[in-house]
Amino acid sequence: MISIILVEPQMGENIGAAARAMKNFGISDLRIINPRDGWPNPQAIAMSVGAVDIINSAVIYDNLRDAIADLHKIYATSCQTRDMNKSVLNSSELQQHILDLFGNSTTSTKIGFVFGRESSGLGNEEIMLADEIVSIPTTKFSSLNLGQAICIICYELFKNSTNTISTAQSNKIDDLATKQDKEYFYQHLFDALQSKDFFKTETKSKIMQMKIRNIFERINNLTSTELRTLRGIIANLIK
Amino acid sequence: MISIILVEPQMGENIGAAARAMKNFGISDLRIINPRDGWPNPQAIAMSVGAVDIINSAVIYDNLRDAIADLHKIYATSCQTRDMNKSVLNSSELQQHILDLFGNSTTSTKIGFVFGRESSGLGNEEIMLADEIVSIPTTKFSSLNLGQAICIICYELFKNSTNTISTAQSNKIDDLATKQDKEYFYQHLFDALQSKDFFKTETKSKIMQMKIRNIFERINNLTSTELRTLRGIIANLIK
Repeated sequence: MISIILVEPQMGENIGAAARAMKNFGISDLRIINPRDGWPNPQAIAMSVGAVDIINSAVIYDNLRDAIADLHKIYATSCQTRDMNKSVLNSSELQQHILDLFGNSTTSTKIGFVFGRESSGLGNEEIMLADEIVSIPTTKFSSLNLGQAICIICYELFKNSTNTISTAQSNKIDDLATKQDKEYFYQHLFDALQSKDFFKTETKSKIMQMKIRNIFERINNLTSTELRTLRGIIANLIK
Repeated sequence: MISIILVEPQMGENIGAAARAMKNFGISDLRIINPRDGWPNPQAIAMSVGAVDIINSAVIYDNLRDAIADLHKIYATSCQTRDMNKSVLNSSELQQHILDLFGNSTTSTKIGFVFGRESSGLGNEEIMLADEIVSIPTTKFSSLNLGQAICIICYELFKNSTNTISTAQSNKIDDLATKQDKEYFYQHLFDALQSKDFFKTETKSKIMQMKIRNIFERINNLTSTELRTLRGIIANLIK
């Protein structure tokens, strides 16, 4: 249960970009405190593209305290180190940190991330309302675009949530070449090279054959169809 | 040594947002293929804010092949599963993956990340030029804003850079073939095949050439010495 809370955002475009990123990463609750250009905001709608539902259900508040009243834990985002005696969390540790704190009870725990104005970020009084500070590591050029900062936090919260099975998108490989197929290919290739005197001496021949095998063995997931193509190439070239 | 490569970006705002994110995360080499609205682009400059130096030093190309000629390893970003038999990497594994591959030799290895058009991403022929695909995990609402996608990749590459001391095996790979080297190899191979009537028709020729490229592009960390071996094989077989 994650909420994104924008304090006095200035550009509608950034609100729209925030909504789109939220939807990319499975977060839907958007709360906005005093948007500079009023509400609804046509630029926000335009930039949200397929996430206009999040814009339409966003709730407007006139102060941060009310906006976070029903939440359990608040993180303020800031790139600045302030003398506030609050712990500062690196964004890359965020997901693990929340898991450590709440474990699987995250479903009933309501967590909010507060983002400040494009021009000046969050003020000290606003940061004070938060439990912790989250900071996104950057170079010395630390001024992040608001929409991008929100995007990174949403991404960090989402990215391993499904245990990100990277094989989820693994390609169809039901046609993998067998070791035997490859062996036939090497024999074919080496015989062809032999017939053209490619291997000068017996010893050099062994070393060269190992080198050649070492090249072709590094082709990931070579299929038997592809192997036939390679054999076709050899048959053709020696014609 | 990281390059960000944009293929036919449509919105200047996204190019500017890309430059800003690159600077936030310490990447400076921007290459652009046929920006829709020409170059220089006032919107790109406006959105880049403090990163106008990256916009000013961006290099414009008229095709992807030229844009990546001097790079060693190319990652295409895509959210789509395609039957290309290329491995798909989750963005959250990116930094570790690059450390594992290149260890501390990353300083001499030139790596490029290719991003497609806002409307339609990268085409198959463009993805084919890449060694691997990187995918950012999302919900079913998978269409990321271009500037935000670039931001996430740059962030992932940067975020632990100061504390992930590579204990990874520093594979000695100071001899990696460049894209240009590979291009010469393909020309050599295709010319040889052409001279032997391997390609029956013009259409079949294009498809077959794509298939052949797709096989050889999957050889991990092909060195220029190995590439010379492959070219030696071709020269020998057509004798």
